[in-house]
Amino acid sequence: MKQPEFEPAEAVLSGETTDIYFARTIEILRQEGLNPVATMEIFSSRAGVLCGMEEVKALLEKVLPEDNREVWALAEGETMDSKEVVLRITAPYQSYGLYETTIVGILAHCSGWATAARECVSAAGGIPIISFGARHVHPSVAGVMDYSAIIGGCAGCSSVAGAKLAGNEPAGTMPHALIIVMGDTVKATIAFDKYMPSEVPRISLVDTFKDEPEESLRVAEALGKKLDGVRLDTPGERGRVTPDLVKEVKARLDLAGFKKVQIFVSGGLDPERITYFLENGAPVDGFGIGSYISGAKPIDFTADLHEVEGKPIAKRGRIPGITPNPKLKRIM
Amino acid sequence: MKQPEFEPAEAVLSGETTDIYFARTIEILRQEGLNPVATMEIFSSRAGVLCGMEEVKALLEKVLPEDNREVWALAEGETMDSKEVVLRITAPYQSYGLYETTIVGILAHCSGWATAARECVSAAGGIPIISFGARHVHPSVAGVMDYSAIIGGCAGCSSVAGAKLAGNEPAGTMPHALIIVMGDTVKATIAFDKYMPSEVPRISLVDTFKDEPEESLRVAEALGKKLDGVRLDTPGERGRVTPDLVKEVKARLDLAGFKKVQIFVSGGLDPERITYFLENGAPVDGFGIGSYISGAKPIDFTADLHEVEGKPIAKRGRIPGITPNPKLKRIM
Amino acid sequence: MKQPEFEPAEAVLSGETTDIYFARTIEILRQEGLNPVATMEIFSSRAGVLCGMEEVKALLEKVLPEDNREVWALAEGETMDSKEVVLRITAPYQSYGLYETTIVGILAHCSGWATAARECVSAAGGIPIISFGARHVHPSVAGVMDYSAIIGGCAGCSSVAGAKLAGNEPAGTMPHALIIVMGDTVKATIAFDKYMPSEVPRISLVDTFKDEPEESLRVAEALGKKLDGVRLDTPGERGRVTPDLVKEVKARLDLAGFKKVQIFVSGGLDPERITYFLENGAPVDGFGIGSYISGAKPIDFTADLHEVEGKPIAKRGRIPGITPNPKLKRIM
Amino acid sequence: MKQPEFEPAEAVLSGETTDIYFARTIEILRQEGLNPVATMEIFSSRAGVLCGMEEVKALLEKVLPEDNREVWALAEGETMDSKEVVLRITAPYQSYGLYETTIVGILAHCSGWATAARECVSAAGGIPIISFGARHVHPSVAGVMDYSAIIGGCAGCSSVAGAKLAGNEPAGTMPHALIIVMGDTVKATIAFDKYMPSEVPRISLVDTFKDEPEESLRVAEALGKKLDGVRLDTPGERGRVTPDLVKEVKARLDLAGFKKVQIFVSGGLDPERITYFLENGAPVDGFGIGSYISGAKPIDFTADLHEVEGKPIAKRGRIPGITPNPKLKRIM
Amino acid sequence: MKQPEFEPAEAVLSGETTDIYFARTIEILRQEGLNPVATMEIFSSRAGVLCGMEEVKALLEKVLPEDNREVWALAEGETMDSKEVVLRITAPYQSYGLYETTIVGILAHCSGWATAARECVSAAGGIPIISFGARHVHPSVAGVMDYSAIIGGCAGCSSVAGAKLAGNEPAGTMPHALIIVMGDTVKATIAFDKYMPSEVPRISLVDTFKDEPEESLRVAEALGKKLDGVRLDTPGERGRVTPDLVKEVKARLDLAGFKKVQIFVSGGLDPERITYFLENGAPVDGFGIGSYISGAKPIDFTADLHEVEGKPIAKRGRIPGITPNPKLKRIM
Amino acid sequence: MKQPEFEPAEAVLSGETTDIYFARTIEILRQEGLNPVATMEIFSSRAGVLCGMEEVKALLEKVLPEDNREVWALAEGETMDSKEVVLRITAPYQSYGLYETTIVGILAHCSGWATAARECVSAAGGIPIISFGARHVHPSVAGVMDYSAIIGGCAGCSSVAGAKLAGNEPAGTMPHALIIVMGDTVKATIAFDKYMPSEVPRISLVDTFKDEPEESLRVAEALGKKLDGVRLDTPGERGRVTPDLVKEVKARLDLAGFKKVQIFVSGGLDPERITYFLENGAPVDGFGIGSYISGAKPIDFTADLHEVEGKPIAKRGRIPGITPNPKLKRIM
Repeated sequence: MKQPEFEPAEAVLSGETTDIYFARTIEILRQEGLNPVATMEIFSSRAGVLCGMEEVKALLEKVLPEDNREVWALAEGETMDSKEVVLRITAPYQSYGLYETTIVGILAHCSGWATAARECVSAAGGIPIISFGARHVHPSVAGVMDYSAIIGGCAGCSSVAGAKLAGNEPAGTMPHALIIVMGDTVKATIAFDKYMPSEVPRISLVDTFKDEPEESLRVAEALGKKLDGVRLDTPGERGRVTPDLVKEVKARLDLAGFKKVQIFVSGGLDPERITYFLENGAPVDGFGIGSYISGAKPIDFTADLHEVEGKPIAKRGRIPGITPNPKLKRIM
Repeated sequence: MKQPEFEPAEAVLSGETTDIYFARTIEILRQEGLNPVATMEIFSSRAGVLCGMEEVKALLEKVLPEDNREVWALAEGETMDSKEVVLRITAPYQSYGLYETTIVGILAHCSGWATAARECVSAAGGIPIISFGARHVHPSVAGVMDYSAIIGGCAGCSSVAGAKLAGNEPAGTMPHALIIVMGDTVKATIAFDKYMPSEVPRISLVDTFKDEPEESLRVAEALGKKLDGVRLDTPGERGRVTPDLVKEVKARLDLAGFKKVQIFVSGGLDPERITYFLENGAPVDGFGIGSYISGAKPIDFTADLHEVEGKPIAKRGRIPGITPNPKLKRIM
Repeated sequence: MKQPEFEPAEAVLSGETTDIYFARTIEILRQEGLNPVATMEIFSSRAGVLCGMEEVKALLEKVLPEDNREVWALAEGETMDSKEVVLRITAPYQSYGLYETTIVGILAHCSGWATAARECVSAAGGIPIISFGARHVHPSVAGVMDYSAIIGGCAGCSSVAGAKLAGNEPAGTMPHALIIVMGDTVKATIAFDKYMPSEVPRISLVDTFKDEPEESLRVAEALGKKLDGVRLDTPGERGRVTPDLVKEVKARLDLAGFKKVQIFVSGGLDPERITYFLENGAPVDGFGIGSYISGAKPIDFTADLHEVEGKPIAKRGRIPGITPNPKLKRIM
Repeated sequence: MKQPEFEPAEAVLSGETTDIYFARTIEILRQEGLNPVATMEIFSSRAGVLCGMEEVKALLEKVLPEDNREVWALAEGETMDSKEVVLRITAPYQSYGLYETTIVGILAHCSGWATAARECVSAAGGIPIISFGARHVHPSVAGVMDYSAIIGGCAGCSSVAGAKLAGNEPAGTMPHALIIVMGDTVKATIAFDKYMPSEVPRISLVDTFKDEPEESLRVAEALGKKLDGVRLDTPGERGRVTPDLVKEVKARLDLAGFKKVQIFVSGGLDPERITYFLENGAPVDGFGIGSYISGAKPIDFTADLHEVEGKPIAKRGRIPGITPNPKLKRIM
Repeated sequence: MKQPEFEPAEAVLSGETTDIYFARTIEILRQEGLNPVATMEIFSSRAGVLCGMEEVKALLEKVLPEDNREVWALAEGETMDSKEVVLRITAPYQSYGLYETTIVGILAHCSGWATAARECVSAAGGIPIISFGARHVHPSVAGVMDYSAIIGGCAGCSSVAGAKLAGNEPAGTMPHALIIVMGDTVKATIAFDKYMPSEVPRISLVDTFKDEPEESLRVAEALGKKLDGVRLDTPGERGRVTPDLVKEVKARLDLAGFKKVQIFVSGGLDPERITYFLENGAPVDGFGIGSYISGAKPIDFTADLHEVEGKPIAKRGRIPGITPNPKLKRIM
Repeated sequence: MKQPEFEPAEAVLSGETTDIYFARTIEILRQEGLNPVATMEIFSSRAGVLCGMEEVKALLEKVLPEDNREVWALAEGETMDSKEVVLRITAPYQSYGLYETTIVGILAHCSGWATAARECVSAAGGIPIISFGARHVHPSVAGVMDYSAIIGGCAGCSSVAGAKLAGNEPAGTMPHALIIVMGDTVKATIAFDKYMPSEVPRISLVDTFKDEPEESLRVAEALGKKLDGVRLDTPGERGRVTPDLVKEVKARLDLAGFKKVQIFVSGGLDPERITYFLENGAPVDGFGIGSYISGAKPIDFTADLHEVEGKPIAKRGRIPGITPNPKLKRIM
């Protein structure tokens, strides 16, 4: 994966997205003429996959004085323990104090998404996972969410913005809407095949109007060898997708000679459900995951000052001075 | 609250934040020359407080053809049931099909935040709740998150962007960082009082260096009548804030004659914990809530086509035709 | 319901179906010349619907001496409490001692079935229940099982033998085998209609080859007004029958103008599942119940001697003498 | 064990014990002139001991055309897995379609009993188990139930009919009724010894009137070396039989010099309770099991057509074509 | 109940039974010449029945200076809430500081016993409870334990020391040892009747050698009208005492004409078991309770200084100054 | 540990602390002239550490006839199994029958305490445990409780009486009361140091008025090298002592150069909590345990006669004759 390019937004730089009390703190310190070199450490509240560090780095590059700064960090996508220090900034406090909210917010949200993605990827044991969850988050974070899912191990994502950040192509099949508007799955599949560039895989969604194995055979007969796969997204009212359904679709396709058609599964999946498919021997070729990743709870991060002007200090409940962590690398 | 002003971002309008398969669907339909008037209904997966509708409205205003559209919706902040239809759009499908991801994404994220906020507000029984959770989300949604919290009933929020959207002033006291940089709580409190405009309440954070009751008495003696309140944010390592601690701080302040000093509580709060404070008679004057609101799981929404060119239709598992809901109001 | 006619089998009368030690007991008593008038009481181990009493009565009529007997009993189908005495026999012990195993065996098995049936009937709140469970029991008891189910409140049963005992007509629709042999549901339904007497309801099984709503519409269009109903028996691999499926089949039939077609549901049902359909407003016109009734655990009964030659006696753990129960009626 | 002889009853052959819809199916197919060779597979719903296959074989021998049939099956008493195919019939459908209910019913009930017996036998680790449960089932199945228990591993059974089917002698001691009628345990035991053939073991039931150890010593002193054993069947009101009671009876008999008297235990036993006796070192010489075996839930079996005229076919939810199972042996 | 007389032991007065650090504290204060009037409050850790206050009072009478003391307290046997102040002492600290351990220790142990007794008494709904638990505590506290049980509501106790403190007669029947030494229950009962003063009730223990109902009838026949009752103490190995056993003993005694013989139950009883007897209608005339009362966990009490020389003070976690409690009465 | 000296109290010898029915039994036997040599065995109801045997031995030495006694026992502090015989007395019954209550009472209470202590010691893995629980028991058993705790493995105890019995010095730091009376922790610590003999360790209690790390630094600066340690006893209202607090106190003391100051923890500890400290790496130098040990439930013991005049005998539920136990040693 090539390096993504993050550019801090104006609203971030101006402090608009931060807690007001940091703006006030900077104002007070300016008035008092206080700008000590201070060391802030940031640690996570639980174990997971660290994500957001590249975006944080882009911000720090912009705001820290080049000649008076020292920043140590874990890398994007690195595994972190509970309570592990993932970032340590030493610089004049006024240069970065305003951004505490922003820094921990980026890490919290992105690490939450990446960690949930990693759980799915681990459960799937090599079968590719695609992030399909843009529909459960605000569009302002759809891209960064899908980027985080890919950092967590997803093979692709459905949003254009996410794919752009991650430097690859967006992934997708066809929605129920296309089939409903066209009135028939076979008709929609033929149209899809007719107009889409050849590099887009031909994967038909086969649960809209007819029983899945019947519809699978219909699209296979219509497209012949051009059909790459079918997607099963059976709704809960119809018992959602089960391992037995996947096996039966596969068996009926095989019986009719369509042995190369792949089967993709989506709809309410999570690591437990993925494991259930695998343990029951369902021949799945790819999973599409929605809200388990995109609706994952952020991983709270905490920022603490541990040194001021080189002297160990800390609030009650913390140990004064630098917290040793050999995994940290100096990045600035 | 005055009407917030939402302006669809360029990335939203261009379809960059949507699932790729909707872009492909529109492309296929254009090629096929198909643009039927279609009715899409959107329903929630669980009960809660609907939020995001104003932002969705701003988008629809921009993309639906003025002379061929009919939109029915519940209002911003209205209570919704599980599976209740909250939005119904009738218009040429090509005009809005691209935005399905965006529309359900906005509603999902914002309703998740507003609903969590409402739970806290209900638990607090009239004691004001302030949203302090910007530090747990990506800065791109810090503002809309805080706006949603206020729609859910919060009295205020800590981010500048959220307050702007909601049309009020951001709220905050002082961070531990100010006190650590200045080296002493009393000194920091005096500086705060010296430089902040008079309309900013004087609320001192009293758990940084010394036992809370002792520090409360120190700042009360230093500021006298100017002190509006103290905030307790005791870390878990020190037993976090308990009802007994609040009562003791109050009792010791009263004993020393500082009966008007208010007490604000923050740190790991949720509705259960709020209830615990109230049931134990803790004299709290305000709660600051972080990740319970900002890290709330989005409420998934589902969009379904129910009519095409006036004819009832639906995918398997859905009932064809319009779903009656007398609570819907025509908004376009 | 007319009185069923039970005729004790030869194997029963000869003692072949009893525990060997009762045969030995009678032999010893004969050798000893002991044949006291003894009172035996029989009580159930748990509450339920008493069934089998008519068959027991037929046996006692045959074996007890007409001039020296007194029998008190609860009636067939009557509700009984846990530990309630349901039968009291006073007669010379040699005349009935051999049949203790048989008597408690009949009551145990039949009351177990009737009680399970009653639970389903209670849950269904007026919607008819048909016993479909002959396939889970040995054919020697298929009839008496279905008879017991009807005593427990079922509206009918599927076995010929059961219907004969209960004095009504057997009930049934069509099996998957008919449809598979004929190759198509519509073809099978038309043949059924062609050859079956007019009093047999036309109910088509609609889950064999196609999605249920689609198949329902096909058979409705084929038979028109002659179609009485459809049966849903969706297998677990397809999510079994759900309230949502019933509602959707109903809605799609209604939309197509087939408003009078009834919907019958079968497959793994029990009182909890019946309640689930009702609570979710599924428009079900009849339930077919299998192993919940026919595989019900027998209700153990215990037989104790309480008087010998008019003198109270009992084994350890029992109270000597007659146990009062005003609900008992003298039947012999 | 010698081969049992099963003879299909007239009511079975006439279709009286089957579900009515199979009779109707045969009627329709006859009218249509359809009688394809069809392959039916039967599989169990859970793991266990297969039983009833001999009785099914006797039926199939009678109804399948000798020159056009192929039957593969697991053997009587063989262990089967969940969902394992245990029987596959290929023959003209009209010859056997009527008996689907009967075939799965026999297997279900008998396998349920045999499986429960096996669980007890496994728990008892070599100590013999006798089936005492005829009193909890209808007399029409008392014999086949006890036969199934012996297939499952029981050393004997109490019903005459069961022993006949299994080709051995029925087992039993003496009932409470004998002792109550005779008024004293010692008197009853002496009479039993006087009249019973010498091959019947002398086992006295010692809980009727006196404390078990006291009564055990009384009968031991009365019968001397002729006493083979005592049976403990203490009722729940007296704490039922416990390991400590068995040990104490043994210890007091030993102390009095009756070291060869065996101890049999009955009353509410199941595998868990048997294990409890063994784990606590109770010197038990035999267990009598009642309703755990005879009231065992039948194991549901399912019959599916998988080929018609040599072509793979199946209803939704099943895989068309023959299901491979190398354990099946051809039996016809 | 007349006032018990408590006399502080020498080891208590000398400080031998206290925590060493109080002895050191008094030593330091003496050396420093510090002896301020201090107010100590004592509160309980959970709700219950206060007991031990009379003994504490006897100690305070001895050690507090008569002219400079003020003591407020709840009364012996009064109900107390969790965290309720039950005792407040104002006096020169040197006079009572040494006894903090002793005071809270007496209250803790005695209140634990009284509270457990109260639970049994409440469960028994008027049926008398006798404390039989001396055998589970050290003899040094056997008396004060039984005294506390009577404060909690017991009708009597088995220890001589406890009865003396409580001012009544000790209660008891006969132990198994007497019967075993004499070799027969009837013989032991006759001897008991022969030598015991007439005011001692004739209650025979009937589970030693024979089944309880049989032995009950034997002693009833031996003593005739002189028999006041029987005690059932059946061991666990024999299923301990059950409601059914009590009913059967009663029924068999009644049947034999001994309607006035009372039934006493002991052996592993607690409030839950007492309730079980009552709910099952067992005709019990008295319960003997052992370790549920005597092995009850002490109720921890905490002592805190709240004023020194009239000035409110308190350690962290406590509210300085007097805690209001209108239930307190001045006792010195 | 040197042998403790136990001296039976007069109230014990006179039978005042026993159950009245033993006094009556002795009286009856005297009148009957019965004094057989009888063997009594005593076994525990659960596994644990045997304690109290030395005190029992002192009693038996006094009451058993020297020329006609045989006593076998486990040793003080030895581990015992559930139901294991720990004491066997053979002597004329009149000589010891009166003391059954006393003997089992001593063993029950003392073994309960010793066993609880052993659990704490095992959990602490070498870190010393001090028994601080005198304040939760009646002063009459404070000494024997602390003695039992030391038998169970505690390194010391807080009561003077317990230390005397165990033959060592009582342990303790300083109470909150000393600090409150003196008004300041530093002042109290200096006074303690001034007046206490040099062999008493200087351990300051640091949670009374100020935050623990702050107070720890204050006393360390005041006493310098003379300070041996600090005790943390933080109340629940302040989050009680946590591993994090211990670590922070240690870190701040180390940072200030006080690396040798030890840390002692007390307040609501039990084995689970001790394990929690250890698993979290808290640098604790000693634990003070209160009610977990002193409020431990006594371990019930049962005494049974197993031989009278050399003949095996036993009540129902027990095995007559001597119970073999090779661990028993002859002690008299």
